Amino acid sequence: MGQANTKSDEMLKVCEHTLPNGLKIIGEINPLAKSVALGFFVHTGARDETIKEAGVSHFLEHMMFKGTAKRSTLDITYALGNMAAKSNAYTSEESTVYYAAVLPEYFDDLKELLSDMLRPSFNPTEFDVEKKVILEEIALYKDKPHYFLFEHMFADYFKGHCAGNSVLGSTESVSAVTRDEMKSYFDRRYVASNMLVVATGNFDWEDLIKDLTKYCASWPKGEVKRELKKFIPTKLEKIYTKKDLNQVHLAFLANGPSIEDDERFPLGVLAVIVGDSVGSKLYWELIDKGLAETADMDVDEKEDAGCVMTFVSTEPENVDKVRGIVKKVLSQAADFTDQELERAKTKLVTRIVLGGESTLGRMRSIGHEWMSRKEIHNLNNYVSKIKNVDRATINKALEKFPLTDWSEFRLQSEN
Amino acid sequence: MGQANTKSDEMLKVCEHTLPNGLKIIGEINPLAKSVALGFFVHTGARDETIKEAGVSHFLEHMMFKGTAKRSTLDITYALGNMAAKSNAYTSEESTVYYAAVLPEYFDDLKELLSDMLRPSFNPTEFDVEKKVILEEIALYKDKPHYFLFEHMFADYFKGHCAGNSVLGSTESVSAVTRDEMKSYFDRRYVASNMLVVATGNFDWEDLIKDLTKYCASWPKGEVKRELKKFIPTKLEKIYTKKDLNQVHLAFLANGPSIEDDERFPLGVLAVIVGDSVGSKLYWELIDKGLAETADMDVDEKEDAGCVMTFVSTEPENVDKVRGIVKKVLSQAADFTDQELERAKTKLVTRIVLGGESTLGRMRSIGHEWMSRKEIHNLNNYVSKIKNVDRATINKALEKFPLTDWSEFRLQSEN
Repeated sequence: MGQANTKSDEMLKVCEHTLPNGLKIIGEINPLAKSVALGFFVHTGARDETIKEAGVSHFLEHMMFKGTAKRSTLDITYALGNMAAKSNAYTSEESTVYYAAVLPEYFDDLKELLSDMLRPSFNPTEFDVEKKVILEEIALYKDKPHYFLFEHMFADYFKGHCAGNSVLGSTESVSAVTRDEMKSYFDRRYVASNMLVVATGNFDWEDLIKDLTKYCASWPKGEVKRELKKFIPTKLEKIYTKKDLNQVHLAFLANGPSIEDDERFPLGVLAVIVGDSVGSKLYWELIDKGLAETADMDVDEKEDAGCVMTFVSTEPENVDKVRGIVKKVLSQAADFTDQELERAKTKLVTRIVLGGESTLGRMRSIGHEWMSRKEIHNLNNYVSKIKNVDRATINKALEKFPLTDWSEFRLQSEN
Repeated sequence: MGQANTKSDEMLKVCEHTLPNGLKIIGEINPLAKSVALGFFVHTGARDETIKEAGVSHFLEHMMFKGTAKRSTLDITYALGNMAAKSNAYTSEESTVYYAAVLPEYFDDLKELLSDMLRPSFNPTEFDVEKKVILEEIALYKDKPHYFLFEHMFADYFKGHCAGNSVLGSTESVSAVTRDEMKSYFDRRYVASNMLVVATGNFDWEDLIKDLTKYCASWPKGEVKRELKKFIPTKLEKIYTKKDLNQVHLAFLANGPSIEDDERFPLGVLAVIVGDSVGSKLYWELIDKGLAETADMDVDEKEDAGCVMTFVSTEPENVDKVRGIVKKVLSQAADFTDQELERAKTKLVTRIVLGGESTLGRMRSIGHEWMSRKEIHNLNNYVSKIKNVDRATINKALEKFPLTDWSEFRLQSEN
């Protein structure tokens, strides 16, 4: 692979600022862009919930669209519509994110709107209506074999560690949560010092600081802790059942890098070699031969833990054969050709580069990099880290994370 | 809405060249881009097929991935994989397109690969295998109510005009087509003078011309005609049936602009006001109230004909009510507020701007604009044409295309 093209980064100005209350702001200004993206990243998610609060981060994310002191739900819907914002929000185990991209002429409106939305009114009627929506969402997801297996498997694998907490929560926990409990979680976690604002694209940095000072300087600073804990995996074998399944789903979990481990780069490349959805070892052995519907390997990095996951779906009559092939491929993971290595690196670099062509893509990368590692995401540096992966760094990573002790989970039909 | 930002376009160099055999080449060079996209556009599709050939354009598109004089199917798959190309192909009534985006260091490989693929070997074994794949695809699509209705409706609405030809063709026509007939269609339509190459992103223009001369200068020039014909719509009412449908699907068609009519801009804005998937008149009347699952209005522009289409899916018990609401909304289409007009324009501009942030998006826009209007697509000009739409231009467009005589089509369960 050739040199990374660095020209475009000379056009980008990256700025940082922190308001007195601790709200961190990062801007990547691209005067050639024709759009601007704005994201609010909250360093909170399922892992920060007590058992009783399970699902409250995700429920709260929904409530952010359900009215503020000065706007109704409909006002928010109309405001986003009027500026034709490409907007969304999502909750994970580790973070909750709200974002939108608009034309530059709507950026002033967007700053005001998102800042207002992030201080919701917790309208009791809206709370009750939205609780029903969430409970329907949980019921819907429970019916998906994929989701069902992952929920149970991560709870068992990470037992005693909050990395296994459920993002949606359970029917019981969400049914039980009260408006006051949600408000208390919000007051504890949505404080300025636990949040980050990222803007990318064509905008004025001074205006951004001025406006965010106006809208957010009064937010309480707070003091927030996230409990970090060493995770020591044990080797498990579990079989779950569910009615009326046509396929069997197998998952294999092994200890993997956390977000702070540099091994995530070589192991990320190895996961593409072994289990990318197209053109990987598992693809040629299982998908191309018609033996499995799905066959993937992924590295899942959390703040204080991590795992490498292999997931396969197949017909019941093929399950023993498929399991044998997966075990064999996994045991020979480090046995790849130079061409396989190059192809995997090129795939990863291409995905990052194409993803980074939009202001939304840049905003997400910068936000998550800062949230997890307190570093400013630089596309060229990131690309270099992937390009620098070679056989030696992969073998070294495998010394720390040997991918030999795979816990095994299976979901099959109970009837 | 403010001024369009023109700064970035000053960075872009747009070049045109035509090889002696008539192959047209357009490049939009962006030295700041980190990727490059390449597309081959063939001015051929379902409308250029004889009745006997129905579906051959789409079948041929598949064969382009099935081997050349020097590459097997697997060689092509590996080559695309090695350069991690984000690639695809599609066939419509009017054109057939092959494209990929890669990192700049793989552009030389990509030029050679796509040029080679566009001269397929029509391997008889691959032809037979792929015919089965296409027949399965047709069977799959026939089961989709949406597709089933559109196929029948367009065939009836455009009766006697090739704008209603089916892209997939029928089980009968595809079963009957021979390798020699496909080859004959290819020889007739895939000639240099009927094709266009578009490159966008970070690449060298002189190298592109040099390489395409090397790979494509020997392609026959040919002489290709597309039959253009005035279309005079008649007002139809049709009911189709299909077994075991849970919903009723209603479609309304009215005469609309062809690609050459400037009315497509005001009518495109009007379609967003009336029937965008979110926040439109139909959305608030039907989707938000839970009366319909889908409610859309679109303008479908072909080279010599066009239509405006309204499509709604609903439960059988609501069909009369929903039909009444749709008819009322359509009869009052021109009755909108200034805010609705502004919102629709902003939506369209935002979609174009965000879509144009990727090299792939630019490549597609430039290719289709040239194919249909022989003009170089300029983002700012396009945005201006939308921004210039106002109440007067919409009313003027409605004089030519009054959207009053709606043909009506319905798909319902036969049992």
